[in-house]
Amino acid sequence: MRADFQDEFARVGSTLVIMAKAVREAMRQASAALFAADHNLAAQVTVRDAEIDVLNRVVDDRVQELISRRQPIGGDLRMLLTALQVSADLERMGGLAVHVARVTLRRHPVPAVTPELTGLFKAMAAAADELSAKLVTALADHDAELAAQLDSDDDTMDQLHTDLFSVMLSPEWPMGVEGAVDGALLGRYYERYADHVVNIGHHVVFLAGGGVRAPHADIEP
Amino acid sequence: MRADFQDEFARVGSTLVIMAKAVREAMRQASAALFAADHNLAAQVTVRDAEIDVLNRVVDDRVQELISRRQPIGGDLRMLLTALQVSADLERMGGLAVHVARVTLRRHPVPAVTPELTGLFKAMAAAADELSAKLVTALADHDAELAAQLDSDDDTMDQLHTDLFSVMLSPEWPMGVEGAVDGALLGRYYERYADHVVNIGHHVVFLAGGGVRAPHADIEP
Repeated sequence: MRADFQDEFARVGSTLVIMAKAVREAMRQASAALFAADHNLAAQVTVRDAEIDVLNRVVDDRVQELISRRQPIGGDLRMLLTALQVSADLERMGGLAVHVARVTLRRHPVPAVTPELTGLFKAMAAAADELSAKLVTALADHDAELAAQLDSDDDTMDQLHTDLFSVMLSPEWPMGVEGAVDGALLGRYYERYADHVVNIGHHVVFLAGGGVRAPHADIEP
Repeated sequence: MRADFQDEFARVGSTLVIMAKAVREAMRQASAALFAADHNLAAQVTVRDAEIDVLNRVVDDRVQELISRRQPIGGDLRMLLTALQVSADLERMGGLAVHVARVTLRRHPVPAVTPELTGLFKAMAAAADELSAKLVTALADHDAELAAQLDSDDDTMDQLHTDLFSVMLSPEWPMGVEGAVDGALLGRYYERYADHVVNIGHHVVFLAGGGVRAPHADIEP
């Protein structure tokens, strides 16, 4: 990569790091609001998500401007197109935080998470936050090794998701349909959030390698 | 747009139309398998989805090659980047068809849709198919007017989704937790599928206008 292009690409990368931090904070807020049944906190997630959307547009516009002006080919071009994919994944993660927040808003003042599921969802929220923290570092430090770990880290989330269904579908489940519906949707939101982290992890590995080959990581079929 | 570029872009557009048809067929199959509790048919959706993933890569590679070789700027460049977004949306729609199919596989030989919800889900499947059919035509004919209709057409799906929760959360709901969990997830898959159609609709309006302005349609927060 040419040094001057590298400088300009680094500015795109910095915006992605800012986005990833905002996304992490959005999901932290959404999770905290969920467990505290905190209407105000849940409502703030939407505001934060609007900021994430703006950052997504900044990345889109900057990449487009860079392609127009620099006319990159090969690895340089692939890296810019990959940055667009990372930005799109982060934007969706912000959207999933809003979905978690909306479950809280919809059920307020009743807590959306039933006591039987609180432990599992706290573990899911913690797993989401750990994945996010690692993602921020991997993005900021171009750390391919750390990014590659995200794949196996996601196994924790997948196991929790499986456990969630075992609890809800067991004959002893006492919480009725409403708790199960919220549980199924919340589980899906956290699981998808983690899928996007894994997907970005693949992109970071690619970016850290200087755009050597095209990434075709599927987050899920 | 330069005429020779237009020819090359048309080839990308043709691939998107093929993808959209394959996605429509995948969701038709997934829906048919769901209502018939047909294991074989549900399993075929995965095969079809693999074809959709290949087409997604073809679009990615072709767009990248076009940018490298033609070094487009302005509207031409924006159109190519928009094609990547359409392709990504279609790929996700294929993934959602697989999710619908997996619910069938998981519950086989028991039908995943309880009798109380069959009418609603048949209406959702029909709405998804109508949206898909219109999308294929709008993409093939570069029909901005038709594409713009998709936004309001999606209201049908949103209403069905709302109705679904009313049924599942009513005190008369007789089907227990498992039916409600499957119902909540299936509802989410169909609703997301329609969201992606709407999103592509915005992109088609933009493409039909020759890439006049950057699209920033959010399918959901």
